[in-house]
Amino acid sequence: MSNTEDQFKKVISHAKEYGYIFGSSEIYDGLSAVYDYGQNGAELKKNIRDYWWKAMVQMHENIVGIDAAIFMHPTTWKASGHVDAFSDPLIDNKDSKKRYRADVLIEDYAEKLNIKAEKEIAKAAKRFGESFDREQYEATNPRVMGYREKQKSATARLAKYLDADDLAAVKALIEELEIGCPESGSKNWTDVRQFNLMFGTKLGASAETATDLFLRPETAQGIFVNFLNVQKTGRMKIPFGIAQTGKAFRNEIVARQFIFRMREFEQMEMQFFVRPGEEMKWYEHWKEERLNWHKSLGLGEENYRFHDHEKLAHYANAAADIEFNFPFGFKELEGIHSRTDFDLKAHEQYSGKKLQFFDPELGENYTPYVVETSIGLDRMFLAVFSSALQEEELENGTSRTVLKLPSVLAPVKAAILPLVKKDGLPEVALKIMDDLKYDFNIIYDEKDAVGRRYRRQDAAGTPFCVTVDHDTLDDDSVTIRHRDTMEQKRVAIKDLKEIIGSAVSFKTWISK
Amino acid sequence: MSNTEDQFKKVISHAKEYGYIFGSSEIYDGLSAVYDYGQNGAELKKNIRDYWWKAMVQMHENIVGIDAAIFMHPTTWKASGHVDAFSDPLIDNKDSKKRYRADVLIEDYAEKLNIKAEKEIAKAAKRFGESFDREQYEATNPRVMGYREKQKSATARLAKYLDADDLAAVKALIEELEIGCPESGSKNWTDVRQFNLMFGTKLGASAETATDLFLRPETAQGIFVNFLNVQKTGRMKIPFGIAQTGKAFRNEIVARQFIFRMREFEQMEMQFFVRPGEEMKWYEHWKEERLNWHKSLGLGEENYRFHDHEKLAHYANAAADIEFNFPFGFKELEGIHSRTDFDLKAHEQYSGKKLQFFDPELGENYTPYVVETSIGLDRMFLAVFSSALQEEELENGTSRTVLKLPSVLAPVKAAILPLVKKDGLPEVALKIMDDLKYDFNIIYDEKDAVGRRYRRQDAAGTPFCVTVDHDTLDDDSVTIRHRDTMEQKRVAIKDLKEIIGSAVSFKTWISK
Repeated sequence: MSNTEDQFKKVISHAKEYGYIFGSSEIYDGLSAVYDYGQNGAELKKNIRDYWWKAMVQMHENIVGIDAAIFMHPTTWKASGHVDAFSDPLIDNKDSKKRYRADVLIEDYAEKLNIKAEKEIAKAAKRFGESFDREQYEATNPRVMGYREKQKSATARLAKYLDADDLAAVKALIEELEIGCPESGSKNWTDVRQFNLMFGTKLGASAETATDLFLRPETAQGIFVNFLNVQKTGRMKIPFGIAQTGKAFRNEIVARQFIFRMREFEQMEMQFFVRPGEEMKWYEHWKEERLNWHKSLGLGEENYRFHDHEKLAHYANAAADIEFNFPFGFKELEGIHSRTDFDLKAHEQYSGKKLQFFDPELGENYTPYVVETSIGLDRMFLAVFSSALQEEELENGTSRTVLKLPSVLAPVKAAILPLVKKDGLPEVALKIMDDLKYDFNIIYDEKDAVGRRYRRQDAAGTPFCVTVDHDTLDDDSVTIRHRDTMEQKRVAIKDLKEIIGSAVSFKTWISK
Repeated sequence: MSNTEDQFKKVISHAKEYGYIFGSSEIYDGLSAVYDYGQNGAELKKNIRDYWWKAMVQMHENIVGIDAAIFMHPTTWKASGHVDAFSDPLIDNKDSKKRYRADVLIEDYAEKLNIKAEKEIAKAAKRFGESFDREQYEATNPRVMGYREKQKSATARLAKYLDADDLAAVKALIEELEIGCPESGSKNWTDVRQFNLMFGTKLGASAETATDLFLRPETAQGIFVNFLNVQKTGRMKIPFGIAQTGKAFRNEIVARQFIFRMREFEQMEMQFFVRPGEEMKWYEHWKEERLNWHKSLGLGEENYRFHDHEKLAHYANAAADIEFNFPFGFKELEGIHSRTDFDLKAHEQYSGKKLQFFDPELGENYTPYVVETSIGLDRMFLAVFSSALQEEELENGTSRTVLKLPSVLAPVKAAILPLVKKDGLPEVALKIMDDLKYDFNIIYDEKDAVGRRYRRQDAAGTPFCVTVDHDTLDDDSVTIRHRDTMEQKRVAIKDLKEIIGSAVSFKTWISK
């Protein structure tokens, strides 16, 4: 098992052990690619959502939020292109009865060639030692070159066929490359066909009048169909944004990597409406602003990078991902997309309603252009959680597991601990908790030795421990211990609210 | 149109005009019984949710929150009884092809008899004037007595047949009472059959392996299936509670009354796990505590009443509603239910997993009993919004529309208004906004005369207006105006944060 796999397994088991994430319906052996957030996970998720909402809505005078329903009129998805184009190419193996994404079969084949090439290179590197010139070896070794060429050719042909929507050619390629079923090895394949990723359901009881609905595959369309209502009732002037958080659903064939790709997930999206022609300025603006938002949380600047899209979706004229260094490598965390006027125009066409803005400065009507920022809340959760989980060697030779969550996001802000369970210390500790609980999520813990309680709070991600000891009875002071530094300080009880408050406040963090 | 209908229409149109609630997918002429929350509605809804969450989770050391997925393992709904018993008796009219709830047809018939009786009584009251004795008249007038008897008999027989699940008798009753299709008058009815209210969908692409899923019809089951995970990882000791907010879905045949009964809605539920035998004590405790929560918001104590259930659901041994005085009368706002050990036992049976608690004080294992508090977030929104909307006659003979939302729930806490759009006043106003926006949702408005801006903020529900005038440039003070009293006070800019903060804080309100 590689180090990354190992670290990822630790993340998953720690998330369960400390009440962050449980498998959905676990007592029924779970539901594939669906997860439940436990008592700490629900708070962390909520805090991430709030941190985003405050940064986007509360801090921007020209951005407002909405909360549209998951159910939408089905024509919405016709206009957005999801009915026609939101699908994966699937293929069935006739012998094993297993179903696969045809493109993933070919990509996995190509990846295997890449691994073979890397193995050859690694062997050579070992053989040649320090004198090894990787670049030269790659460019001259026939075996490596052969692997690379085959790999490149398979990937390029797949892209070409998918672009042309030529599913017969995709199947022919699978046969030509002699790709077998990963489970059975059988090469007895059906044709490739497109499978729509939207979940369907039926509204209404009567067979004649029931409406076929989809569970929304993205929250963005809820913003577009409400564009005019918000603009008019909110007296918004361009440029302005509409933000939304909420559930979306995709019937992914291959859902994997824990909460990174789930069938039910939550999005945090903002659509920024601008003058046509000004979209690139705003696109650059939002790329920078969103990266700064991420950086404010202090997860490590080296963990982010931009990935500009070369191939653009049908609605976009520019697109970039903010990628994060997950336990399984750099992957998309957030997308910033210049969506042009594609969506509003499409909804105009299908609804027959004008979705335009009268610009008083220009004295004319136009269909605004849109720059979107779109982030998965669950992915953000995974980014925060996985980078926070650390194993630390301590000076005394022991080690500790510590979950260094940004304190603004931590589920519990402080644990109040009486040093011993007697002498009136629990009563003082409970009184401190009662004073602080209006402002923060606080817990009380009196079980086990205090050192063990510190370790428990470290692993649970609690930024502060407040210990009440016998001196407290005389001096109205307590010991406050910081999770990250393990530093302890004596402070007055009356100052606790201010000390904790300023450390965990939105203002402190967003201003970083 | 009655006064109540009139008031209700005002609520609906005000909700749209001020960006609180829009019809879903309105540009496509809407989706029946589904609504979207606009820029103010999204904030109000969020603030209600937060007020509940803080009161339930943050304030109670022994209550934690979770966030379970909408998708759950299908056996969950077998165990909970929803697959077998969560249905409405439907009947179709063969001529009009319209479908109805058979029980509603009979209830409407009975209600019509009631209206006829009331009309007779009203006529007599007019005829007899002050000497009219209603009670005596009701007990002696043959026509009124006839209507009442028929009404009572129809209702009683319906209840009896439904209890016995005798759908043929329900149909026979409809025929006997000669109830016609409300649209066409036709009495040509199909048989009555049960229709399940859960929305179905399919998970996975392969026909052989696709799983039939339901969209959860309640959030409670997400808590029950996670009971053991939360109890163990959270080291919870009985009594303790698990709280959750989230979407639920019911394919209602007759969904109506705006956001009161929607097909997609949000619940705020808490399941409190107690020792068997102690459930009635906790049931009474939570009835009182939940009513106090409602009262803390100051919507008027006369607007609440308890309704104890006589007929209990299959899982309950006691149940009561907190009813609220909606624009259409007293209706259920929240339910408090003593659910016994029904749910945990059912999940034990279907999953084969023990869902018990080892009670260290008693030294024994048992299946906990459960007391539930369950409130619809959208209903709570409607309660807050409809009771807040008022038309006030002012001393100067004019009137104003004011939305007296509890300030802790108001979407925007303060509007910052420069008296005029020049002389540096906008700059000062914007600076005030920039200082306050980290802590509160604040808006800036410079358009129109200040009196008009006040009215606009009154109608939008903003508790404070802060006006920057020419004196501000000298004395660093502003005028703060209170929405409810219209009182204006001169205060220092540096005190604004404290003044607004203490007025809108959770602690201030929950301690009421």
